[in-house]
Amino acid sequence: MSTEPRLVTVRKNVLKQNDVIARALREQFHQSGVFVVSLVSSPGSGKTALLEKMLTLLATRSRVAALVGDLATENDAARLARSRVPVKQIITGTVCHLEAAMVKNALDGWNVGPLEFLFIENVGNLVCPSSYDLGENLRLILLSVTEGEDKPLKYPTIFNSADLAVVTKMDLLHAADFHEEVAVANINAVRPGMPIWKVSAKTGEGIADLLEFLKSQRSCTQVRAAV
Amino acid sequence: MSTEPRLVTVRKNVLKQNDVIARALREQFHQSGVFVVSLVSSPGSGKTALLEKMLTLLATRSRVAALVGDLATENDAARLARSRVPVKQIITGTVCHLEAAMVKNALDGWNVGPLEFLFIENVGNLVCPSSYDLGENLRLILLSVTEGEDKPLKYPTIFNSADLAVVTKMDLLHAADFHEEVAVANINAVRPGMPIWKVSAKTGEGIADLLEFLKSQRSCTQVRAAV
Repeated sequence: MSTEPRLVTVRKNVLKQNDVIARALREQFHQSGVFVVSLVSSPGSGKTALLEKMLTLLATRSRVAALVGDLATENDAARLARSRVPVKQIITGTVCHLEAAMVKNALDGWNVGPLEFLFIENVGNLVCPSSYDLGENLRLILLSVTEGEDKPLKYPTIFNSADLAVVTKMDLLHAADFHEEVAVANINAVRPGMPIWKVSAKTGEGIADLLEFLKSQRSCTQVRAAV
Repeated sequence: MSTEPRLVTVRKNVLKQNDVIARALREQFHQSGVFVVSLVSSPGSGKTALLEKMLTLLATRSRVAALVGDLATENDAARLARSRVPVKQIITGTVCHLEAAMVKNALDGWNVGPLEFLFIENVGNLVCPSSYDLGENLRLILLSVTEGEDKPLKYPTIFNSADLAVVTKMDLLHAADFHEEVAVANINAVRPGMPIWKVSAKTGEGIADLLEFLKSQRSCTQVRAAV
């Protein structure tokens, strides 16, 4: 009999089940040529604001859709709908993260046609989402300048689970006394070499460059798939 | 046999066990005359900055101590130690909230003498801490002006679990385009009648008033205990 506490065992089984579904999702995304980008951050770091900007810019040339997770309300889906791309809200209730099964259920029967990009906005949380693979190609972790430079050190697991850091609200850099070099050093301490983007959804700073990077990453996947 | 999923059953047992310990803590706090205030919020809402100001102001006249929870690092304890009051860090590892048992363990053998106030800073998270009673007298939920006015609607459970809302970073009110009246309406929609304080740890705005309120609340408890 296992000597592990019961809660640990149950949690491991849940995670294992999640990984199985995430793997199937990843294969499905790959087959259909959609590049999937997820966003994680604290509540209020600007996931929805950044996403609205990105969707609006991308929608002129690409086929894009978004899934947004929240405990309650469909506010984010309503905000993102202004970009005129298909958006679906996933209400998680009391669950503090998205799981692969929630993504799968949201996609089942959602007739959005072939996509080039699918964005998944996770519940605002720097802890729970870290263990749940959603089958995404890239995970973006957002850190707003108003949160302080120490967050990577205090929440290392989620920074480690991400592929790209995005420093948001750059328009508030000086008002918030944010020290960029400290934040960059802290990100590098936790996840050496992770690319770091700096953006402002308010002024638009950095967003076009970030989108170019995402497009280039999508092309890489296509090339890798063709080889 | 229960028809509930195993994870739900296990979680209920964990919560039940937490409540038993929290009840014992509350009785212990009551007996020793210490008024316990916990702080919850998103990561980066300014819990530590507010607490440092409050501890510094309180320490001139009252016996105060603080416990601070974090996944990793002792940074917060180091910051709060500048207030010269006794501070102890609780490292939670991958656990996204404090539990009553962690508070109990941290207090056991911590020779701080009789206290008038004990502050407990929770892990930065708007979901997980909501279900865990720590035996506190008052729970403060912080909402910084940079996070947006919609957070009470999106994280209703934790706003519901709190006794007092504190709007932080008021110095950034205009830079962040924060609409106070909308935030107040949203807090009231989720938790009608909850008192709301507005503070800035940077300028000191509102902090003395908040402390007066906490002192008055402590006196009420003393009176209630004497009757």
